[in-house]
Amino acid sequence: MTVDDLVKVPARCGKAQRVSQGQHIQIVNTHGTQVVDTWAFNADNMGEWMSMEHTRATIDKMMPDLGEAFLSNRRRPIVTITEDTSPGVHDTLNAACDVYRYQLLGCTEYHDNCTDNLKAALAELDLESVRTPCPFNMFQNRPWEMGNRLYKDPPKSQPGDALTFRAEMNCIVVLSSCPQDLNPTNGADRTPKDVHYRVF
Amino acid sequence: MTVDDLVKVPARCGKAQRVSQGQHIQIVNTHGTQVVDTWAFNADNMGEWMSMEHTRATIDKMMPDLGEAFLSNRRRPIVTITEDTSPGVHDTLNAACDVYRYQLLGCTEYHDNCTDNLKAALAELDLESVRTPCPFNMFQNRPWEMGNRLYKDPPKSQPGDALTFRAEMNCIVVLSSCPQDLNPTNGADRTPKDVHYRVF
Repeated sequence: MTVDDLVKVPARCGKAQRVSQGQHIQIVNTHGTQVVDTWAFNADNMGEWMSMEHTRATIDKMMPDLGEAFLSNRRRPIVTITEDTSPGVHDTLNAACDVYRYQLLGCTEYHDNCTDNLKAALAELDLESVRTPCPFNMFQNRPWEMGNRLYKDPPKSQPGDALTFRAEMNCIVVLSSCPQDLNPTNGADRTPKDVHYRVF
Repeated sequence: MTVDDLVKVPARCGKAQRVSQGQHIQIVNTHGTQVVDTWAFNADNMGEWMSMEHTRATIDKMMPDLGEAFLSNRRRPIVTITEDTSPGVHDTLNAACDVYRYQLLGCTEYHDNCTDNLKAALAELDLESVRTPCPFNMFQNRPWEMGNRLYKDPPKSQPGDALTFRAEMNCIVVLSSCPQDLNPTNGADRTPKDVHYRVF
């Protein structure tokens, strides 16, 4: 498979994709260290969405293992991780970046951000969500320790690393190539990059 | 101070309380091991609320230290922890319990739950929230490890242990004495109990 067979999520941008129950979506970290903020909504009810906090509370893990599902806010399986060719370092703890985040980081002008990317990506499908659920931050390397501290390290993923999810209900999956360029979230070069995906 | 000087949050129930900017609310774990699901909303805009995921993402900690604020979804300080007489073991990772949780635990009839307690408590003030934000689970003992696992242990708090918050904006604070009685979340005796609070 080449990149030409895949759909592009351009650097700093978001994309919403319908995925039917039983279909798979595979997201490729084309350049290796790009963080991808990922959401899933029930295609028949935008009030049901993939929830990091309901998943953790129910499965007693920071995130699902391979073959295990993320749960919705109704604690139903919504997408199952069926493949992960990366080192498996991802994040479920952190909100999507937003205008407020970049203001705190000193930006005086508008900065692309994953929260607005979610909204814009859904709007392209004539959809909206009154919530910005905490995303599944694919490839984000945010180690915790037994104490209170969280760390921001560059992703451990390599070019071409990919995650595949199977939809457990008809889903809207939203991907945002995180525009964070003010810290090493998206790699030591602090440069957001394209990622790609396919549905099968 | 005696319990008579405090407002009661009955076992298994919720209570919403207005707290003005600069005022404090102190929550007392009257019987020692009761988990209290805690939310705060901007009293002038229910769309702004205390956010676990925005707090973690911004302060690089699982939860604020003493003297540090929880942030809202606009990344503004909303309540600051000014005192904690407990061992300081609390949780920011887990969704409020809900009817779906108790169904998964085998309940065939309605079970009190913190999600519905939030809704009912707000309704008593003629308020509502379209969201159930991930709560600050006071006293919940939910250790994590460097791997993926989360544990459910009884609270480490003792009778009379108390947390005090200073409101950084006009707030609606909502407390729910968690009705979980099917695991040790609320203590080895699995019996939800009253807690109490005061505003000053």
